[in-house]
Amino acid sequence: MTGTLYLIPTPISEEAVIDSLTGDIVRVLHKTQHYAVENIRSARRFIKSVDRNINIDELTFYEIGKNSSDTEKSSIIDILISGKNVGIMSEAGAPGVADPGSDIVLAAHKANINVMPLVGASSILLALMGSGLNGQKFVFHGYLPIKQNERQKAIRQLEKESHNFSQSQLFIETPYRNKAIFDDLIKTCLPQTLLTVAVDLTGEEQFLETKSIQAWKSSQVVFPKKPAIFVLLA
Amino acid sequence: MTGTLYLIPTPISEEAVIDSLTGDIVRVLHKTQHYAVENIRSARRFIKSVDRNINIDELTFYEIGKNSSDTEKSSIIDILISGKNVGIMSEAGAPGVADPGSDIVLAAHKANINVMPLVGASSILLALMGSGLNGQKFVFHGYLPIKQNERQKAIRQLEKESHNFSQSQLFIETPYRNKAIFDDLIKTCLPQTLLTVAVDLTGEEQFLETKSIQAWKSSQVVFPKKPAIFVLLA
Repeated sequence: MTGTLYLIPTPISEEAVIDSLTGDIVRVLHKTQHYAVENIRSARRFIKSVDRNINIDELTFYEIGKNSSDTEKSSIIDILISGKNVGIMSEAGAPGVADPGSDIVLAAHKANINVMPLVGASSILLALMGSGLNGQKFVFHGYLPIKQNERQKAIRQLEKESHNFSQSQLFIETPYRNKAIFDDLIKTCLPQTLLTVAVDLTGEEQFLETKSIQAWKSSQVVFPKKPAIFVLLA
Repeated sequence: MTGTLYLIPTPISEEAVIDSLTGDIVRVLHKTQHYAVENIRSARRFIKSVDRNINIDELTFYEIGKNSSDTEKSSIIDILISGKNVGIMSEAGAPGVADPGSDIVLAAHKANINVMPLVGASSILLALMGSGLNGQKFVFHGYLPIKQNERQKAIRQLEKESHNFSQSQLFIETPYRNKAIFDDLIKTCLPQTLLTVAVDLTGEEQFLETKSIQAWKSSQVVFPKKPAIFVLLA
């Protein structure tokens, strides 16, 4: 019998105050010795934090990046075919969603391996739930363009599509560009467009608010230097 | 001080075998006496299943539908303003995402109430993680049109957009239409397009596979009469 490929979500925030651990994750960690991970150090720290009795030295870790090489993928699939379980973990949140891992999952499907996604934290899902915006139809775009003129063009396009299709538009940003994106949104969007700003979800400095662009204009916003998600509904 | 609006995910499958409960949910249920829920009976059953010691008769439930009336919304906001917590629960999965609740969340933001989304099961997120398809860019459409010619047209449009924008396209279906949608997908999509079929996620009859349309054509698929999610990448 082949092993199972477990997709194991890890905490989102470095100083997580929201407990995102389920009994399933604990049980899976106890029956898995092989891990394909975005970052070995944080994966070891996470496993140790779940149960100090797990002997980390008996575990094997394979580091995966944005795209795994065919050799890396086939060695992971070989482990599964030999009957052993493999866990995939990204550095934070749900593997394969705005994070590495999906190419290994696809390779597993091709090899008829059982794929088991586990319940855990995803900043995309938490932001959408907490936004109060349309959760019946939504689009996740990843990062917007870095250059300001392209970014403003992208924002105008998102706003238009949001209005035409009643879709919530989600995108993420790295801490040092939060303020720049926010300023572009305020400058570019229509006054009545709704915008959710979600920063450091599950963390100590969690900030999650939805306002119209007009209302944001008169708010004082200080962004903590933490990853952010934005949700827009025109 | 105002209360907090907690968004509390509940188990997806009626016969859930995947444990999706976190410590946070248990703690929140212990400090919340007011609930806005999609279905009172299943909400009571869920709370009882988490801790038999919670006295259900001391709790107040408000039933919410697709859209809450202004009176319903303002009575829930009044409870929060009076300093009491309110929990929102849909019948299964994450409230506000392909389920009711978002209009109350938006009303809470307008009243400057603290909104706290909790970690738990979402069939959309689990399907995407487990698909192996593009998790960097994706669109959730809800249900496709019911009439066959409109549905086939919608499928062709999704496939085209998926190809043009490298977006995974997700949609859900009710149990009795699973086979009809699947047959339309097989008939309508290009042979190399990838399709994930995810049925009864977290449940006893969980089925989660990704194949090309060509490969699905030569597979025997028997759908359990359970809700399904489809993910498509062209």
